[in-house]
Amino acid sequence: MKMTEPKQKLAALGRDVAEQILKNKNPAIDIPVRALSNVIFNKKEQTLQLGDKSAQRFFFNVGHVKKFLQMLEVAKISKDLLEVGKHASLRDVFYMAKRTIPNSKINVVDDQPETDDAIEDLEIVTGFPRELLNINANKMGSVAGKVVIEDKGDEIDWSRMGSGGWSIPSNVEDIKFKKVNVKYVIYMEKAAVWERLHEDKFWEKHNCIIMSSQGQTTRGIRRLLQRLSQEYSLPIYVLCDGDIWGAYIYSVLKYGSINLAHMSENMTIKTAKFLGVTMDDIEKYGLKKHLITLTENDYKRIDQLQNYEWFKDNKEWQKQFKLMKTLKGKVEIQSLSSRSITFISEKYLPEKIKNQDWIE
Amino acid sequence: MKMTEPKQKLAALGRDVAEQILKNKNPAIDIPVRALSNVIFNKKEQTLQLGDKSAQRFFFNVGHVKKFLQMLEVAKISKDLLEVGKHASLRDVFYMAKRTIPNSKINVVDDQPETDDAIEDLEIVTGFPRELLNINANKMGSVAGKVVIEDKGDEIDWSRMGSGGWSIPSNVEDIKFKKVNVKYVIYMEKAAVWERLHEDKFWEKHNCIIMSSQGQTTRGIRRLLQRLSQEYSLPIYVLCDGDIWGAYIYSVLKYGSINLAHMSENMTIKTAKFLGVTMDDIEKYGLKKHLITLTENDYKRIDQLQNYEWFKDNKEWQKQFKLMKTLKGKVEIQSLSSRSITFISEKYLPEKIKNQDWIE
Repeated sequence: MKMTEPKQKLAALGRDVAEQILKNKNPAIDIPVRALSNVIFNKKEQTLQLGDKSAQRFFFNVGHVKKFLQMLEVAKISKDLLEVGKHASLRDVFYMAKRTIPNSKINVVDDQPETDDAIEDLEIVTGFPRELLNINANKMGSVAGKVVIEDKGDEIDWSRMGSGGWSIPSNVEDIKFKKVNVKYVIYMEKAAVWERLHEDKFWEKHNCIIMSSQGQTTRGIRRLLQRLSQEYSLPIYVLCDGDIWGAYIYSVLKYGSINLAHMSENMTIKTAKFLGVTMDDIEKYGLKKHLITLTENDYKRIDQLQNYEWFKDNKEWQKQFKLMKTLKGKVEIQSLSSRSITFISEKYLPEKIKNQDWIE
Repeated sequence: MKMTEPKQKLAALGRDVAEQILKNKNPAIDIPVRALSNVIFNKKEQTLQLGDKSAQRFFFNVGHVKKFLQMLEVAKISKDLLEVGKHASLRDVFYMAKRTIPNSKINVVDDQPETDDAIEDLEIVTGFPRELLNINANKMGSVAGKVVIEDKGDEIDWSRMGSGGWSIPSNVEDIKFKKVNVKYVIYMEKAAVWERLHEDKFWEKHNCIIMSSQGQTTRGIRRLLQRLSQEYSLPIYVLCDGDIWGAYIYSVLKYGSINLAHMSENMTIKTAKFLGVTMDDIEKYGLKKHLITLTENDYKRIDQLQNYEWFKDNKEWQKQFKLMKTLKGKVEIQSLSSRSITFISEKYLPEKIKNQDWIE
């Protein structure tokens, strides 16, 4: 994807509006509906996608005008950024858009959710993820493994990064992979588990990449995992706590999320497998005494995931959800440390991967 | 500090308890009191320190026995870790300590705060920070600059890390600085600001190091900043939001925290300067329209900081606190982006540093 394309698309969007004005029309922009009612699960592609409902947004419409203006404002900011070759964060874009309309008391935007929303609209209208519109997500996470990349003119060897690893940027679109000498990727939700595997030289012994965030999976990480999966056909093993929230992290990585259904193509990872901790592991690896009692909120979330279209006919996952309820508990990945500090690296992971003991 | 020392200290602690038992004494350990009543502000050293109140903790005392046992358990875990040369996270240590005492229904620990507490006790009793007891804090943050380090046998050039930077580990004790070719360090609380300065090549143009976490300043980052400050006499500029929480981040970095008063020697940074955003910057850099109204909570925190011993006689800071209340507002660092996306790198920071426009 060339960096000129988003700029051309933004220019075309502006030109289209300008032409409507010159023709004395009420300027309108077609915007696909971004709501649950228009999110469908594409069974063939196995991803969440936006349906084909769309709506026209008019300038001369009191209910539309603010969002109309906000999207054009954000489009202008994005075009400016592309022109000077700079990237802004969501918060930056909010402050760049925040100003009072001359001779009025009305602000273009008052709160960040308004620009965030306008940016998502712009993603749909232009068809470009906001990373290519030079608007970055959060920066988070570390990576190590036998991989050499080129980024901003630097050659970076992920196997020579000491105890820290390479810090994953918010935008990974321009990274070039020079050498990818691995068999799979383990993505984990916890930085502390990453440090465990890194200290045990897990990636060196098993020829893999280890990658982590802390909490949420950022867009930068999702794209990096997707690129490794697509460009090198690598399986992506997901390692989370043994609870419904871990299952949801996997769900988002594999099938996409409702919020970003319009970005599924750029985000979902078809080769993702849930490695653990599974409910079966609790018995198998002696973690029963570390069960933490489920809360009301856990039960509610299990009910929800049980009924998601992409889990409904999945026997393995349905079994997991049932087991969660039967066990009335959840376990944390770190409970494996009760067996021994290197149990996860020396026994749990090698055994699970060798036996293909994962859930898809 | 040699890595054998903590092990010897732990062995001595165990030997001391064993000898008391052999002499048919009620085993006791001397533990300095870790409470606000025993935290003093050392004016000469300008740091928070633990006073000299201490208390004996006895094994045969229903009120003491559990904490006594928990500390010995954690000491044993630490000694095991040192012996195999592995590091554990706080959560790992909790799971390693969590077990039921044979022939009873009593667990050694039930919740992580218990092991966390025992670890802090162990820090005081042994005089070693937990990083040297092989118990790691959280991993967070990125760094870039003209610095070459050696870590775990890898030579890492912080100026050749692409757009991501080097990911800061939780434990920086073993890092060797090979080349430090910089004039100062800018530490910022927000990863998005770090990406801004990095994209603008700020560290390259101004010969400095840029370092960030996301939210809290981890112990790894505090130690890394302290080492750079002490070993290379570098000024550390702190860049935060213009609010009382930013002031507190600075306060902890410079003077230490009440919780970790016993670790001040290993944590505080005497060369820290608060670069911004100051209350004066709001007027100076036209950020007034981006003021966010203070909450009840903000006012309460301002009152507290105003009365901290280390701020009480500090005219500059007292002026800041007063201004916060006069302005009734706070500003975010990213509001500088409203001036232009590179305003922070091209105008704000160079001007502030050139004019020595900071607060100490």
